[in-house]
Amino acid sequence: MKGFAMLKIGSVGWIEKEAPECGPLDALVRPLVLSPCTSDVHTVWAGSIGERTNMILGHEAVGEVVQVGNLVKDIKKGDRVVVPAITPDWGALESQAGFAMHSGGMLAGWKASNFKDGVFGELFHVNEADANLAKITANVKLEHAAMLCDMIPTGFHGVELAEVGFGDTVAVIGIGPVGLMSVAGANLRGAGRIFAVGSRQNCIDAAKGYGATDIINYKNGDIVTQIMEATNNKGVDRVIIAGGDNDTFAEAVKILKAGGVIGNVNYLGEGEFIKIPRAEWGVGMGHKSIHAGLMPGGRLRMERLAKMVVAGRVDPSLLITHRFEGMDKIEEALMLMKDKPADLIKPVVSITW
Amino acid sequence: MKGFAMLKIGSVGWIEKEAPECGPLDALVRPLVLSPCTSDVHTVWAGSIGERTNMILGHEAVGEVVQVGNLVKDIKKGDRVVVPAITPDWGALESQAGFAMHSGGMLAGWKASNFKDGVFGELFHVNEADANLAKITANVKLEHAAMLCDMIPTGFHGVELAEVGFGDTVAVIGIGPVGLMSVAGANLRGAGRIFAVGSRQNCIDAAKGYGATDIINYKNGDIVTQIMEATNNKGVDRVIIAGGDNDTFAEAVKILKAGGVIGNVNYLGEGEFIKIPRAEWGVGMGHKSIHAGLMPGGRLRMERLAKMVVAGRVDPSLLITHRFEGMDKIEEALMLMKDKPADLIKPVVSITW
Amino acid sequence: MKGFAMLKIGSVGWIEKEAPECGPLDALVRPLVLSPCTSDVHTVWAGSIGERTNMILGHEAVGEVVQVGNLVKDIKKGDRVVVPAITPDWGALESQAGFAMHSGGMLAGWKASNFKDGVFGELFHVNEADANLAKITANVKLEHAAMLCDMIPTGFHGVELAEVGFGDTVAVIGIGPVGLMSVAGANLRGAGRIFAVGSRQNCIDAAKGYGATDIINYKNGDIVTQIMEATNNKGVDRVIIAGGDNDTFAEAVKILKAGGVIGNVNYLGEGEFIKIPRAEWGVGMGHKSIHAGLMPGGRLRMERLAKMVVAGRVDPSLLITHRFEGMDKIEEALMLMKDKPADLIKPVVSITW
Amino acid sequence: MKGFAMLKIGSVGWIEKEAPECGPLDALVRPLVLSPCTSDVHTVWAGSIGERTNMILGHEAVGEVVQVGNLVKDIKKGDRVVVPAITPDWGALESQAGFAMHSGGMLAGWKASNFKDGVFGELFHVNEADANLAKITANVKLEHAAMLCDMIPTGFHGVELAEVGFGDTVAVIGIGPVGLMSVAGANLRGAGRIFAVGSRQNCIDAAKGYGATDIINYKNGDIVTQIMEATNNKGVDRVIIAGGDNDTFAEAVKILKAGGVIGNVNYLGEGEFIKIPRAEWGVGMGHKSIHAGLMPGGRLRMERLAKMVVAGRVDPSLLITHRFEGMDKIEEALMLMKDKPADLIKPVVSITW
Repeated sequence: MKGFAMLKIGSVGWIEKEAPECGPLDALVRPLVLSPCTSDVHTVWAGSIGERTNMILGHEAVGEVVQVGNLVKDIKKGDRVVVPAITPDWGALESQAGFAMHSGGMLAGWKASNFKDGVFGELFHVNEADANLAKITANVKLEHAAMLCDMIPTGFHGVELAEVGFGDTVAVIGIGPVGLMSVAGANLRGAGRIFAVGSRQNCIDAAKGYGATDIINYKNGDIVTQIMEATNNKGVDRVIIAGGDNDTFAEAVKILKAGGVIGNVNYLGEGEFIKIPRAEWGVGMGHKSIHAGLMPGGRLRMERLAKMVVAGRVDPSLLITHRFEGMDKIEEALMLMKDKPADLIKPVVSITW
Repeated sequence: MKGFAMLKIGSVGWIEKEAPECGPLDALVRPLVLSPCTSDVHTVWAGSIGERTNMILGHEAVGEVVQVGNLVKDIKKGDRVVVPAITPDWGALESQAGFAMHSGGMLAGWKASNFKDGVFGELFHVNEADANLAKITANVKLEHAAMLCDMIPTGFHGVELAEVGFGDTVAVIGIGPVGLMSVAGANLRGAGRIFAVGSRQNCIDAAKGYGATDIINYKNGDIVTQIMEATNNKGVDRVIIAGGDNDTFAEAVKILKAGGVIGNVNYLGEGEFIKIPRAEWGVGMGHKSIHAGLMPGGRLRMERLAKMVVAGRVDPSLLITHRFEGMDKIEEALMLMKDKPADLIKPVVSITW
Repeated sequence: MKGFAMLKIGSVGWIEKEAPECGPLDALVRPLVLSPCTSDVHTVWAGSIGERTNMILGHEAVGEVVQVGNLVKDIKKGDRVVVPAITPDWGALESQAGFAMHSGGMLAGWKASNFKDGVFGELFHVNEADANLAKITANVKLEHAAMLCDMIPTGFHGVELAEVGFGDTVAVIGIGPVGLMSVAGANLRGAGRIFAVGSRQNCIDAAKGYGATDIINYKNGDIVTQIMEATNNKGVDRVIIAGGDNDTFAEAVKILKAGGVIGNVNYLGEGEFIKIPRAEWGVGMGHKSIHAGLMPGGRLRMERLAKMVVAGRVDPSLLITHRFEGMDKIEEALMLMKDKPADLIKPVVSITW
Repeated sequence: MKGFAMLKIGSVGWIEKEAPECGPLDALVRPLVLSPCTSDVHTVWAGSIGERTNMILGHEAVGEVVQVGNLVKDIKKGDRVVVPAITPDWGALESQAGFAMHSGGMLAGWKASNFKDGVFGELFHVNEADANLAKITANVKLEHAAMLCDMIPTGFHGVELAEVGFGDTVAVIGIGPVGLMSVAGANLRGAGRIFAVGSRQNCIDAAKGYGATDIINYKNGDIVTQIMEATNNKGVDRVIIAGGDNDTFAEAVKILKAGGVIGNVNYLGEGEFIKIPRAEWGVGMGHKSIHAGLMPGGRLRMERLAKMVVAGRVDPSLLITHRFEGMDKIEEALMLMKDKPADLIKPVVSITW
């Protein structure tokens, strides 16, 4: 079968591979909608997870099940399914502890395009099909369902990590597709005021559509100064980090009230240390909590978030700026994510078989 | 001064009283917008809190500060303020434990029209003014601010007690003004599907406006049957009880999934026992949690919820169906709450001095 | 193979059965130490879970693995293991939601001696062996390990449900083996004062050994009166219910402070309703939370609690009052649990193969 | 009146001052037992909180009330009281938000020897007496009560921040008096295994007495290597930081499992940044939470912890290695804390009037 792969660090291309095998608990899936992720860009061009050779890329897909193992009970051949980016081993001790995304080791619930071939192939493998695939109901568009794989759950997890509640003042730093979903999620957890920190006009427009009350453009000056001024030097209750780099944490600590919480969902791709400013962190006694984690995956999470889409709580369509037809367009879509033109938020590729 | 009072159980009327005294930490306030509450009806005509003689009624008011004690630092004469229904003693041990609404004893944070004269007088007293009064900013309408005293915080507290999260299926039983705010609050905490249980058309319309996805009318049959059918016999994740009576809990337990949570904010006015059905409660092992509590009051809560109104997260205007001018109209407004005509949700009385 | 079974409601006896089959994820285990549970008595003589015919009893066992399925990776033939009373299906949606004990339906994580043959046979079956069996390390005595199956985790779960914290005043109602473990667990969560409610002398002695500071004997009068007097009418912060019946909840509500929590782990075997007294429950607004649930099972839980035994945090030996040798003694041990002689807390049966 | 003061950075001495004034909600207290704290050393000789001139030192005292304000209801002249190091303004918005230690601004609940004269004077002032002073019951020794002011609540708060639960493997880094109370607290929250990291023999002995199962001496090599070896490279579930410096956090992150929590109660006296190692922190996605905060103060906290001392849950006597008589000995006691002789854990000074 054919797949679009990382050949080695810095290099991508189409390759031929044997079709994956289907274990007794597993499924093989054929993609219907694919979307490339900034993580794919990091993986290939920054080498963030180390060298990989001829590994098929991609971890955002909806598809059609073509085969299931003999112990699979609920998922059937022909089902249309959302495939979460994170597909845990549910019996692992880490899953029993409530951290299924780390089943088998830190981050090891992330399998596709990390430890095994990803979803940018004619067929791909999903472990524990009954527990990791969610059927798509008729009232969800496939391209919207594709936003459930990673963008919505990651953005919303930032909101959970930051423990947003009724009336909170929240800053969301970074308003690419994940950050936009953090804006939407903060709105959906009852935030009072939401500062969206970004600079690209289409993202700013989408942020307002998702509930941002204030836009902070770092091109207009230091974001700490801008946010402190806008809050009468009180600062904010919660910060969600969905962009920036290691130094973003120092800004987050500075704008955060004592008793506040930072929730990070940004993949920190390089550098040795995240630095926490001692004085603004209350000399270690300010109750400024720092939470950071990979999105939870699995079937239940997909089903629950899909209900929110069905009910109109969150509209994924604002995220999708570019649409392609045909599997061969996946390369073009990935290069868009790499080059980030001004009008891009997120591209999708639809495939007809 | 003049006040509209409970003369004794079953009887109301205007009385003359000495103006209240202002302690060193306290304030005296003149009402600008008042609203009667179903609790006032219970207090007078059901005698729910026992006999009271010549007690001025009311605990929902926005007003203007006319005097402050000598230890009050932040609130000033002339400030326009929201007065929460619950005004805790903040230094009490219960407040230190996180239950300020029970400061000094169970429910004792509720003072106005319970332990002391309420707000339906030409002047009323507020304890710990700096900690219990919230200034009204220019961008909030006074009649909207009046919904912050009790309706919004009580409805939203039901959502907190029921621990609603992203994608939950929620049933809100009772869609009077408090239940409607529970619908709005469930929506604002990311509920996927929201069943609103009620029968009056104007409340049903408002429930849809606040985010209900399904209406369950008990006049069409048993609500347990209707909700179980609508959920493929799975039941719901969360139940918020904002109406009904003691027997509503049995229905709530029956429609709740194992691992679910009930949040009650309904004042249970009569009867000896709430009855939990043993079998459907999992013979005491089903993890169907039951939470029930008085709204939190105080200044911070008011300020945080006011931010949500300013940001447009919740629109109080759908609640207000009847408007009166002049303090003498408070009696008419209260009788509306007692008689509940078909077109009523909530009345307000505006007063010019 | 031979097993000691419930023949029908009210009747027990030895039967011959086919050995169970071992699925690809499962294990077959030979018992080394068994213990009968009060639940077995309820199942047989009260018919609490309905009719069962020729079902082998028992759900507390440590044993030796004699066979594993071909997908089992970590557990090996010959391993000595603790078998938790609750053995969830870890991929189920309920498990993903954090309620593995209800995987597949309310209480359905409890399989042995409920939906399938229990552990009182020459061989028994365990689902998802890697996720549900915990290896016994050399420094734990087998009969102590047997207390990890149900008594320790159930008693400790009461403490978790009641949310006991530093300095809490706690009442534990019922001091059989589960209640004694709730006393020990409350001590281990930092309770200040612990009221143990019971009457049998050996249980009272054990309760003191496990950290009870006050003994309340219901034979000396109403327990509500006794506890309210002992607390200057303040009541307690937390109540753990590990005995009594449906009416125990009314007592629990009466002795509980506003803002307090009840945690129930008692199997409620009969009656239609649990009754919550309306007035003492704060007319539905007292923040007296009611939690009730089946113990969490699975491997991780067993391993974590075993660490506490190894470290000497809890000494299971005070629980074991009767020791038997040989599988044929299981009947005698069970009848002890039924008859509850004055000197009984918990019997164990050791088996040599 | 006489007091032992910081004259300026680097210099201490006895001074004469006017007796403090007693506001209407406040109390004046005469010390009975005093104890110097490492914070006093930092304040004077490291200038950690900036310059202070002629400020009386000390924030650990039990004493006798000599005067109360006219609004004080419960505390009376003659009462023997514990004075917590942190005495919040309970009506402040931060207190209403659950962070009373930051009432009025980050860390501003810490008043004595920070913003105003401390307790090392013949008389000292306490704000909000009813809410901040706890009466000492007859069954608590005064010198034990003195450990309730700061050592016990700070050590125990580390346990709360690290969210220690049943069966956790915990590392406590730093076993001075605060760290020893973290060891005791971790034991009292049900930790399975407790690594105590320190080197002084008397502290090691006390750590074992308080429940440590493993001692890690950094003089024997890198603590990360030692702890990873001792845990089969799994690491620990929780880390409590009660000593060390900014670089201790990097060690804590390295020994922590994904999904684990760090709780810091160490005052970080100098340096610009705390550095979090990016890779071991899971590139920002490892769910290794970092919590850090000042102890909660106030009356309720003191009363609850005192109950634990009365019940024998924690024995403060292991902490007290040096005893002095007479207020003039406070200087000698403070110099002990500065010089840290090998046999020191904590000194107390008793005063007779």
